[in-house]
Amino acid sequence: MKRTIVIALAIFTFALMTRAQEPAKTIAERLGYPRDAKLLIVHADDLGMAHSVNVATIKALGTGLVNSGSIMVPCPWLSEIATYARSNPQADLGLHLTLTSEWTNFRWGPVSSKDRVSSLLDKDGYFYLLETDAAAHADTRQVEIEIMAQIEKARALGIQPTHLDSHMGTLYQSKALFEVFLRVARSQKLPVRIARNWFPRADYLAQTLGPDDVYIDRVLDIGPDVAPQDWARFYSDELKKLEPGVTEVVIHLAYDDAEMQGATFNHPNWGMPGRDVGVAGFGVVNSAADPRIIQFGLKLSF
Amino acid sequence: MKRTIVIALAIFTFALMTRAQEPAKTIAERLGYPRDAKLLIVHADDLGMAHSVNVATIKALGTGLVNSGSIMVPCPWLSEIATYARSNPQADLGLHLTLTSEWTNFRWGPVSSKDRVSSLLDKDGYFYLLETDAAAHADTRQVEIEIMAQIEKARALGIQPTHLDSHMGTLYQSKALFEVFLRVARSQKLPVRIARNWFPRADYLAQTLGPDDVYIDRVLDIGPDVAPQDWARFYSDELKKLEPGVTEVVIHLAYDDAEMQGATFNHPNWGMPGRDVGVAGFGVVNSAADPRIIQFGLKLSF
Repeated sequence: MKRTIVIALAIFTFALMTRAQEPAKTIAERLGYPRDAKLLIVHADDLGMAHSVNVATIKALGTGLVNSGSIMVPCPWLSEIATYARSNPQADLGLHLTLTSEWTNFRWGPVSSKDRVSSLLDKDGYFYLLETDAAAHADTRQVEIEIMAQIEKARALGIQPTHLDSHMGTLYQSKALFEVFLRVARSQKLPVRIARNWFPRADYLAQTLGPDDVYIDRVLDIGPDVAPQDWARFYSDELKKLEPGVTEVVIHLAYDDAEMQGATFNHPNWGMPGRDVGVAGFGVVNSAADPRIIQFGLKLSF
Repeated sequence: MKRTIVIALAIFTFALMTRAQEPAKTIAERLGYPRDAKLLIVHADDLGMAHSVNVATIKALGTGLVNSGSIMVPCPWLSEIATYARSNPQADLGLHLTLTSEWTNFRWGPVSSKDRVSSLLDKDGYFYLLETDAAAHADTRQVEIEIMAQIEKARALGIQPTHLDSHMGTLYQSKALFEVFLRVARSQKLPVRIARNWFPRADYLAQTLGPDDVYIDRVLDIGPDVAPQDWARFYSDELKKLEPGVTEVVIHLAYDDAEMQGATFNHPNWGMPGRDVGVAGFGVVNSAADPRIIQFGLKLSF
């Protein structure tokens, strides 16, 4: 199995942008691998959100634990990760386009002028806490203004995004939002995170994609129903049955420190059993590299 | 000495707002104390900036180490301190009106719509790093818009501010800015932090104050020239020679943790000797209450 797993690095994302002449070819073939190769992206979300997230993910990018990540431009620690991106242009960093602000004690709002994107803001002037509220209130023209502003700001800071995805999936919540997302992505010549295994969730996903859009085979992300003590086994099991094609494992890295505990303490879905403080989506598994890093031991699974 | 020092609690600030009929009376007399009473406010700045600052200051408010504080409305951890303010309406919390964003890795911008306050923003859309740059670029009409927006947002979140001050002193940088500051404060019936011992710094400070404005006798804040190991002695010495009138000691509390180190690591003036990481203005002195709290041991000095 080890031989058939190929860690797809930044070159993968760049290669996606080169349109194939032969649509019947799989992504693996277009990347020069056998048709049934098993390609794996390990992707860390939420860069820029917090210092803890930045430091943990930068460490994981350095050790190779993850080979891709995406950045939340509206968040307060953006400048820190932008400095990393400028110093590490080889790093496969996309933009985690952000239209929600989900931690009740720790908030952020739009990059664009608030009066231009008022439909995206809650009564306190921040993005909505929930992706469903964001999607329900969003004026799609304002969504386009804001996500373009996020892309432009990232580039102005020297980030060269390799792909786009959507924090909390807000941009996949409706056909209208997904169309805006794809339109912006095509205009910027950037692939979006979209996977064949998501197609059953909503008809408009496959219907909106065109022949030139690139999508991967599956995204694997852990649900809140998997208890933290089972996370390592979950990933290990999933990877043992990995199928041919491109799989993206989406994870969230951070240290289990005061800052993260302060942000995530009351998240309803991601509490950690046996602890007073929940750490949302940021599971603790020991790492040989740094036992304080919250991660899953992917490299140890083979 | 102990008997003559009176810790002025929130009642002090409220009392300031009651205009005296007899201007010759000192503030001490107006508060019902002897003419030569020594009144002390211990004030913590920068609430809302970071989780670390919030937790440390809330603890210090609870123990009585500080009896006043002020909140930075544009900062990402505002919601956390607003929750505290709503639950503790007796707490003497003002607004630390904010027109700068001084940590290079950790930034914030205006409460008002960016296109209405463009003169306050640097090329990345945040407030300027330095108060001198902020003052040099600021359109005073836009300053008024933004500080009014900060006051209105605080009140909308249930904060009942008792006073106003200015983060990094931006609003004291010019006559025009100080006039805006006072005009807004008067319109909101809130006292500003202004002290007689600041008058020699600029003629316009005393000149702009009117007969109904209240000001205290002195503000005592530690400078970057005092080495951290000397902070406890500095405060102890200053308090031993405390003079009659109202003195406000301005401090900054935080834990010496990863979040604060990440924010403050490269501040030019407030580095901590013997450490790789500077913690700006947030000195470490042991506290009996919690040795991790960064504070000076004021209560232990008498």
